Amino acid sequence: MNLDQATQDQLKQWETELAADYQAIIDQKLSLDLTRGKPSSEQLSLSDALDGLLKGNYKGADGTDVRNYGGLDGLPEAKQLGANLMGVDAADVLVGGNASLTLMFQAMLTANNFGLSGADSAWNKEDNVKFICPVPGYDRHYTVCEQLGIDMITVDMTANGPDMDAVEALIKADSSIKGIWCVPKYSNPTGVIYSDETVDRIAALGKIAGANFRVFWDNAYSVHDLGEFKPLASIKDACSKHGTEDSVLQFGSTSKITFAGAGVAFMAASAANLVGFKKVLGTLTIGPDKVNQLRTVALLPNKDALLGHMQKHAEVLAPRFAAVLESLAANFGDNDMGSWESPEGGYFVSFDTRPGVAVAAAKLSADAGVKLTPAGATFPYGKDPANCNIRIAPSVPTLAEVEAAMKVFAVCVKLASVRVAIAA
Amino acid sequence: MNLDQATQDQLKQWETELAADYQAIIDQKLSLDLTRGKPSSEQLSLSDALDGLLKGNYKGADGTDVRNYGGLDGLPEAKQLGANLMGVDAADVLVGGNASLTLMFQAMLTANNFGLSGADSAWNKEDNVKFICPVPGYDRHYTVCEQLGIDMITVDMTANGPDMDAVEALIKADSSIKGIWCVPKYSNPTGVIYSDETVDRIAALGKIAGANFRVFWDNAYSVHDLGEFKPLASIKDACSKHGTEDSVLQFGSTSKITFAGAGVAFMAASAANLVGFKKVLGTLTIGPDKVNQLRTVALLPNKDALLGHMQKHAEVLAPRFAAVLESLAANFGDNDMGSWESPEGGYFVSFDTRPGVAVAAAKLSADAGVKLTPAGATFPYGKDPANCNIRIAPSVPTLAEVEAAMKVFAVCVKLASVRVAIAA
Repeated sequence: MNLDQATQDQLKQWETELAADYQAIIDQKLSLDLTRGKPSSEQLSLSDALDGLLKGNYKGADGTDVRNYGGLDGLPEAKQLGANLMGVDAADVLVGGNASLTLMFQAMLTANNFGLSGADSAWNKEDNVKFICPVPGYDRHYTVCEQLGIDMITVDMTANGPDMDAVEALIKADSSIKGIWCVPKYSNPTGVIYSDETVDRIAALGKIAGANFRVFWDNAYSVHDLGEFKPLASIKDACSKHGTEDSVLQFGSTSKITFAGAGVAFMAASAANLVGFKKVLGTLTIGPDKVNQLRTVALLPNKDALLGHMQKHAEVLAPRFAAVLESLAANFGDNDMGSWESPEGGYFVSFDTRPGVAVAAAKLSADAGVKLTPAGATFPYGKDPANCNIRIAPSVPTLAEVEAAMKVFAVCVKLASVRVAIAA
Repeated sequence: MNLDQATQDQLKQWETELAADYQAIIDQKLSLDLTRGKPSSEQLSLSDALDGLLKGNYKGADGTDVRNYGGLDGLPEAKQLGANLMGVDAADVLVGGNASLTLMFQAMLTANNFGLSGADSAWNKEDNVKFICPVPGYDRHYTVCEQLGIDMITVDMTANGPDMDAVEALIKADSSIKGIWCVPKYSNPTGVIYSDETVDRIAALGKIAGANFRVFWDNAYSVHDLGEFKPLASIKDACSKHGTEDSVLQFGSTSKITFAGAGVAFMAASAANLVGFKKVLGTLTIGPDKVNQLRTVALLPNKDALLGHMQKHAEVLAPRFAAVLESLAANFGDNDMGSWESPEGGYFVSFDTRPGVAVAAAKLSADAGVKLTPAGATFPYGKDPANCNIRIAPSVPTLAEVEAAMKVFAVCVKLASVRVAIAA
C-alpha cells in the first residue's frame, strides 16, 4: 500500500475500505489517551515507601536539621544522588525543588535578564536574543523561550541528535544566538541518544559562539532505559577538552523516577555558572525542601539502587513501547505512510506521517475517542511546517489500551494519508 | 541614667563602669546568636509526625493522585488550609511550593516584566518603577525589588502600621510607584498589627494609584500569636468596599507552622490576578508538590487544629519573648537609650537605640560573642539613615541563652550610647 505509486482508483478504493474500518472504531465508543508523558499509577507505586521512609530522623549526613531553613544549593547527599543520576561530579550539582523545568526557567531568566556572569552578560542587553531548538522537541522548552521573549530557530533532529552542520552554520552566522536546547538521551520525542560525535561538537560550540552562549542540556531520561543501560558521552569531559566548561548547564530530576509531582530537581554546572545562578536564586528562596531531598536519597541511596529502581520502571514500560513499535512495524513497515525511530528508553515514540497529514490524522483519532498529542505541539509556536509529526506517549494507558489505541492510530493515519493523497 | 541630661563627667564615669561590665562579659567567652528568625528544633519537632502521616494514601479528597504531575494552583484541601490560615476564601487561594518568598518573587517578576493583566500592564514598560517599603522591614522583600531593578522609597512604621499620610502623599505625587510591601500582622520586625484604619486606607490606595498598583500583603504571621488570637481586619473586605479587589496580592505559608524548609506557601488574589499570575507560573512549573500539600493538610485539617498547633509554638516562644521584653524594660524603661514595641506574636522584637548607636552596639555585642542582626539589615540597601535599629530574634536560643544574651545586649547598647554621647 504505497501511496506514491497508487492510482486515483486505488486510492479511492482504499479510502472506502479504511472509512469502513474507521466507522467500526467509532461504533466502539473508545476513550483512550496517548498524550500524556507522565508515569502510570503502577510506576508511581514503585516509590510509595517514600512517605514515612525517614522514620523520624530529620538529620542529614552532616548533621543538618533538614526541617529548618537554609542550604540554598541542597544537601550534600542529594548532590551525590544528582551526580549518580546525571553522570557528573557532586561538586558541580545544585539541588532544587520538585521541578527541573523551574530550574531551567530560572537559569534562562538569570542568563537573559540578570546575567550569569554579571549584569553586563545579560542576553537582553542586546536587541534580539535567539535560541536554537532541535525539532521535533519538547513544548515546555519552547514556552520558556517564548515567555522570556527569546526567538526560536529550528534545526532538524537526526538519528544522532541535532543536525550539527546546521547548528554550527547558524551560530557562525549570527552572534545573537545565545544557546540551544538539548535532550541528549532518549530525546523528547524522537527517543534518539546523541552520538559521541554530536556531544563533542555541542561541547565545541562554546569556541565558535560568544562567551554568554549556553547549552541547556536537559538530561531528563538519563537512566530511563527500557532495556540495558545505554551510555551517553559526558558533555563535561568534552567541554574540559575544548575549554568550554562554562558553556553548558545540565539538568535532571527524579520526577520520572519517584513521584512525578514530588521529585527532586538538579542542575549541574561550572563553579562560575553556579555562583551566577545562586546570586539570583538566593533572592527568591531561602532554600529547597531538604526533607524531600533526604527521603528521596533514602529511597535511592546509591547508583545500584537507582538503576535497580529504574529496572522496575522498565518492566512496566517496555511492553507498552513494544506494543507501539510492533503496531507501527505491522502497519507502516511496508508502505510510505510513516516513519519513526525505535527508542530504547524515554517516554515517547515520535511518528512522522507524509507531509500534510498529521493534523487530520490526530483529528480523526480524537473523534474516534483516542487522544493524540496535538500535531504541532513538538514545534516552537505550535507550528509543524510539514504538518507531519505526532508524539505517541504510551506510559499511562494499560498494555491492552495501548494495543487498542494503536489500532485506531493506524487506521486514522492511513485514512488521513489516503484522503490527502486523493486531494493532492 | 538619662544621657540627654548627663554632664561629660557623669558620662565618663558611666563609660568606665560599663566598660568594666563589658570586660567581664568578654571574659565569659560567650557564643550566642539573636539573628536568626527561624523556628527552634523544639518547634520543628511539633510537626515531626508529618513524614509518614499519609500512611500510603496518596489520593486527594477529590480522587487526585497527588504523586503525579499537574494541578498548577494546588489541591482543593490545601487551598482551604490557606484560607483558614489567611482568613480568605479558598477560591481566592493558589498553593505553591515550600516558600512564599518564591511566590512573592514570581508575582513581582510577573507584574514587573510580563504584566499581571496582559503585556501592556508590565511595570517595566515605564522608565522608572518604584515601590514603597515601610521601615524597618524585611530584608528579603528589599532584595526582591533590588534584583528586579525596582527603586525603593521608605516610609516610617508606626504603632498602627505604615505612616499612611506619607504613603498616600507619595502615591498621589508619583505615578511610577507601583506598590507597597506590607507585613500586616506582627510586622517584621516591629511586631505591630496594622489597625483597622490602616487596613482600610491601604485597601483604598488602589483608588488613588494607577490600575497596575499592587499591595504585596505578606501575612507571614497571621496565626503566630504568643497569647490569644488577635484579629487583623480583612484587606479583601476593605477592597470589596472600595472596589479595589485587584490591587492586593496576599501571601502566607506554613513555614513557621510546620517545617521551615518544607512548608506550603500560599497566594490569595482576585480571579483576574490569579489568571495573570498562572499564565507565567504555568511556563515554569507543571505544578507544586501535592504530596507535601496533602500531608500538611493531614496535620492541620481544620482551623481548630491549626490554632491548637500554634498554641504549642506559643508555649515554646512566649517565655523567650517575655525574657527579651523584661530585660528591655529593666534596662531601658527608665532612661533615654532605647525604645521598642512589645509584640504579642511574630518572630522579632525591634529595638531603636539613640541615633548613631546601633552599628557600634552590634559590633560590641558581636565582639563579646553575641550575634545581632547587622544594624541596617532592616532597611533597603542595608542603610539605616539614623543608625538606630536592631532586630532581636529570640526563637532559636534556649530561654537561658536568651536571658544571657539580653544581659550582653543591654551592656553593649548602654556602653555604645554613652560613648556616642561623649563623642558628640
